[in-house]
Amino acid sequence: MTTNTERKRPGRPPGQSDTRDRILASARELFARNGIDKTSIRAIAADAGVDPALVHHYFGTKTQLFAAAIHIPIDPMDVIGPLREVPIEQLGHTLPSILLSLWDSEMGKGLIATIRSILAGNDVSLLRSFLQEIIAVEVGSRVDDPPGSGRIRIQFVASQLVGVVMARYILELDPFKSLPIEHIAETIAPNLQRYLTGDLPFDIA
Amino acid sequence: MTTNTERKRPGRPPGQSDTRDRILASARELFARNGIDKTSIRAIAADAGVDPALVHHYFGTKTQLFAAAIHIPIDPMDVIGPLREVPIEQLGHTLPSILLSLWDSEMGKGLIATIRSILAGNDVSLLRSFLQEIIAVEVGSRVDDPPGSGRIRIQFVASQLVGVVMARYILELDPFKSLPIEHIAETIAPNLQRYLTGDLPFDIA
Repeated sequence: MTTNTERKRPGRPPGQSDTRDRILASARELFARNGIDKTSIRAIAADAGVDPALVHHYFGTKTQLFAAAIHIPIDPMDVIGPLREVPIEQLGHTLPSILLSLWDSEMGKGLIATIRSILAGNDVSLLRSFLQEIIAVEVGSRVDDPPGSGRIRIQFVASQLVGVVMARYILELDPFKSLPIEHIAETIAPNLQRYLTGDLPFDIA
Repeated sequence: MTTNTERKRPGRPPGQSDTRDRILASARELFARNGIDKTSIRAIAADAGVDPALVHHYFGTKTQLFAAAIHIPIDPMDVIGPLREVPIEQLGHTLPSILLSLWDSEMGKGLIATIRSILAGNDVSLLRSFLQEIIAVEVGSRVDDPPGSGRIRIQFVASQLVGVVMARYILELDPFKSLPIEHIAETIAPNLQRYLTGDLPFDIA
């Protein structure tokens, strides 16, 4: 619960910043420990000692809170949501087109900085949760053919896309770092599509 | 030049460790600043104040010195050399097979640790030099069709392979982290082969 006993400081609402920070700290800890799926807004609120309604009020949905917790400057669902409308035979091209446009943008700089700091901090569990839970559920469920393969298909796609982030923004390979978005999207699209809907050369255990 | 005035310590040759460290420090600095190609053993020796013959004596070839400088526990040419014998139509499969076996080995742990520390340290120029100069020259020159495309082909291959390292060893995606080597090699092989010898969907500038 927020209290009315917090000392007033001029220029911002009393205690709001502390409360927000406490919620973010609880969110980071619980998301990292238990993953995104198994962490509820209610549990984060309890850990932070505030009302769940206040968490929703400050941060919105769980993925919006997740984005705020790891300093991603956008709601991941703004990108993932529209993909629901794209036919799966086009995902191999649409996915890198959307993502490269985002990563190349001003907003993308914050994203890349976040990825670097996650890698540097040795705590990759938040990034892993995001890939394994949000992306696997949103996209993996649509390409789960044969059953059980969706998760693996998505992880091969992730391996190519994470590699593009590394080559273009972190290693800054020349000329890869300055190739037009469309050149990269077109070159990797057939390969991503193979991972998504092609035959896998092994049986799913 | 080494001198004979260094103080004797019991149990190891006088000054050898200091000299080796000085050579490695000079190597790291010059490789990072100027790249591998433009850095000579002679320049490193001069920077460290020793005779070039001593650098060769301690570290062998330039790629062996490079490996020592960035704490890679093997000579990169031990992996890259044998690839020269592999027909380019088979590289898409041979490349990930060899590399995954290496990365999965005991020795690979040191390699992955090195990559993590390079990423954490924000100084990726040594890793970039290695990919751009050693790999581009050794492998890229064989797939330079049309002329000028070899470097870009190799960078797309690198983007997929670096992504595999990230997904398997750093993000440790489940089940990707425990898939048999051959499953990963077979799944990415046709895609790597496309990057190496397939048509690129854009003109080389």
